[in-house]
Amino acid sequence: MLTQERRAQVADVTDLNQLKCELNALQAVDVGDCIVEMPPEQRAIAFRLLNKDHAIAVFEYLPPEVQEELINSLQDTQVCQIIEAMQPDARAELFDELPAGIVKRLVQQLSPAERQATATILGYAEGTAGRAMTTEYVRLREGLTVGEALSKIRLADGDKETIYYAYVTDNNRKLVRVVSLRQLLFSLPEARIRDIASSRVIKAYTEMPQEEAAQLMKRYDLIALPVVDREDRLVGIITIDDVVDILEEEATADIQKLAGVSGGDEAALSPPQVTIRKRLPWLLGNIGLYIGAASAIAPFQKVISLVPVLAVIMPILSNTSGNVAIQALSVTVRGLGVGEVTPKDTLKILRKEILAGLGTALALGLALGILSLIWSSQQEWWVALVAAMVMGINVFIAATLGTLLPMGLKRVNLDPALISGPLLTTMLDAVGFLTFLTLVSLALHMVGNG
Amino acid sequence: MLTQERRAQVADVTDLNQLKCELNALQAVDVGDCIVEMPPEQRAIAFRLLNKDHAIAVFEYLPPEVQEELINSLQDTQVCQIIEAMQPDARAELFDELPAGIVKRLVQQLSPAERQATATILGYAEGTAGRAMTTEYVRLREGLTVGEALSKIRLADGDKETIYYAYVTDNNRKLVRVVSLRQLLFSLPEARIRDIASSRVIKAYTEMPQEEAAQLMKRYDLIALPVVDREDRLVGIITIDDVVDILEEEATADIQKLAGVSGGDEAALSPPQVTIRKRLPWLLGNIGLYIGAASAIAPFQKVISLVPVLAVIMPILSNTSGNVAIQALSVTVRGLGVGEVTPKDTLKILRKEILAGLGTALALGLALGILSLIWSSQQEWWVALVAAMVMGINVFIAATLGTLLPMGLKRVNLDPALISGPLLTTMLDAVGFLTFLTLVSLALHMVGNG
Repeated sequence: MLTQERRAQVADVTDLNQLKCELNALQAVDVGDCIVEMPPEQRAIAFRLLNKDHAIAVFEYLPPEVQEELINSLQDTQVCQIIEAMQPDARAELFDELPAGIVKRLVQQLSPAERQATATILGYAEGTAGRAMTTEYVRLREGLTVGEALSKIRLADGDKETIYYAYVTDNNRKLVRVVSLRQLLFSLPEARIRDIASSRVIKAYTEMPQEEAAQLMKRYDLIALPVVDREDRLVGIITIDDVVDILEEEATADIQKLAGVSGGDEAALSPPQVTIRKRLPWLLGNIGLYIGAASAIAPFQKVISLVPVLAVIMPILSNTSGNVAIQALSVTVRGLGVGEVTPKDTLKILRKEILAGLGTALALGLALGILSLIWSSQQEWWVALVAAMVMGINVFIAATLGTLLPMGLKRVNLDPALISGPLLTTMLDAVGFLTFLTLVSLALHMVGNG
Repeated sequence: MLTQERRAQVADVTDLNQLKCELNALQAVDVGDCIVEMPPEQRAIAFRLLNKDHAIAVFEYLPPEVQEELINSLQDTQVCQIIEAMQPDARAELFDELPAGIVKRLVQQLSPAERQATATILGYAEGTAGRAMTTEYVRLREGLTVGEALSKIRLADGDKETIYYAYVTDNNRKLVRVVSLRQLLFSLPEARIRDIASSRVIKAYTEMPQEEAAQLMKRYDLIALPVVDREDRLVGIITIDDVVDILEEEATADIQKLAGVSGGDEAALSPPQVTIRKRLPWLLGNIGLYIGAASAIAPFQKVISLVPVLAVIMPILSNTSGNVAIQALSVTVRGLGVGEVTPKDTLKILRKEILAGLGTALALGLALGILSLIWSSQQEWWVALVAAMVMGINVFIAATLGTLLPMGLKRVNLDPALISGPLLTTMLDAVGFLTFLTLVSLALHMVGNG
């Protein structure tokens, strides 16, 4: 892997012959990184130094804004060659980002087959298996022999994204069997495909969310997954390199959404204005909501001035039940994300969280009770009792909601990570403060101090 | 994919002939799930119904406790067959979990070659590339022709985990080239391996953390990665199916550690006692630490009884700067996790966070200032001013620490996710409460109320 220093070094080479040597000796993804490091006016120059096949591979690794820049500064014929040679899924991704005018012009220059492939993929909604697939795969008829199949694969190569699986379709293009290149190589040339190909085909549907397709490939250890339409006709395949990216993006989105970064797709190196746009609206919204939670305290100002130790205890109450909620939430959201649990398991998980929650509530309630006893004056021993009780109740509610809310969202087909940790914390604080201060007020009256 | 209902259905079949048919028609991973669903006493019975090759595949998918159960209840010869046929990496994983006595017995019954392979893998520390690799790969000499190489691959199959890449070594077993099965198929049989294999080999070192090896495969879109020792000798390969699991586990660990679940490996369906063990120690530790933060409030009880609106403002201060910290932390930890940033980028990221932090601090400080003005009585307008100021400072510190702390941990080769969100929040609260109440006390004196 190319270090940051090495990338900067290559990006700084000014002698074009040397640059050409250096770039063509690197892996495509590394060349992409070097080009990104360069000042914009040099990018097209560097790109023109690449051998043709290498240039096409490098182009697929560039970020959309640099791709657009190159499209604008390279010659039309060169642009056409690259766009024509791109994998249909990478091309669809690029077209998604480009201005409509440029896309129209580029589409017109595509060959009919490639134009059709791109249109097919762009016809499916973003985030679906149909959008993530490529249309370049190996298709075989059942009647072929292994020898014929191997010859077909050898002739077809080049533009196929993977040749390690071939898919067998019937006369209506319906997907019926799958055979691996490994199986083909280890069979006799005269064997029939229908006899060696397996009819146990794991497949995705075009409208399936791409994460679900990715989870299927993970579960069954596949390096390519066929995608079929509603009539079970084969329309494309998803390859493992895309799946790795999909799974990583999903995990990033879960982490960031749990933390309240909107959209869940901030890059660590995004410019400050993007960072503010991704984080501030949510923070302001949350402060808005938190008025609700904190307003619960406002009417009790008199109680607080009588028993100021409450101001010491309340943050502990809020902090601890917040932590419990975030733990439960994170475990549940991730469990749903990797398909380890489904909404069907709600009862099972709820039972577990109730038991674990009770244990945790008891331990933490006791801890806070003892702490409050130390902090309060002797006359205020009852504050410790109330604090311990409310802590227990709140921790229990926190564990339960942290589990139930994401399960519920998933059940109605919403994103479980919509409930961010801090949002849940705010809700818990509102309830916690109100219960605590109300109980304290009641106790004050009973003790006769009120 | 098998639904939970379908699994339960298969697990409930009592007629052995029917069960045999059902199980042998399923994918290995699905059979594994069905067996897990069964009551323990039926598992061995069901397992014995599987065809031999299927049984070996199914066994690799079972959780360690069920594997151990089967080892104890199956006949010794059958156990030996299975253990002998397992992939060395899966076998090493199993041996890691089994009691030493059983491992010793099983190792003695392995063939010398398999025993050697297992010993090699177990010789590397957990979590390294060496431990995650398998020793079954295709190795070629440079002098072979393509035709000879293909024959060698055909003869060797069966026990090789992947045949889609072959690795070329020199006389000292040093890894010098790599060639894909695709390249072999599309070359003339009489071509020499040395002429078609690429010398640009992406490789991992045995002691490299497994996540780094996984990130390499992700970056270069590989389906297998060679692993070499310090002398550059080829010792194994890591395959893409393992990488997908490694990346998913790392993401889960990051999510859970950020939320303060110790070890970061709680399963959503773990029993309650595991949940309590994974969560409670950290919660109790955090309450312990939070004594520090809340103690900062205790000496100010008199101030609070004079200005009880402080008890309304403090939770908002704490909540908001906590949120800012968790956002920055999550983006940074994830950025480090996927290799998007490295400690080298600290300055770049710090600049970004300072700018974004200033913007956020300004907006949130203003928001809290206005809120406090509304809540406080007219004589307490200065409380709003202090609140706004402290909020600004605290938010700024939160954004900076949320970025710097994980970068710093990574720089000294510790896990950046060691700084969980709540831990950082506790630190921020201690500083925030102290600054706020100190400034309020000073202002009280100045305004002449003190």
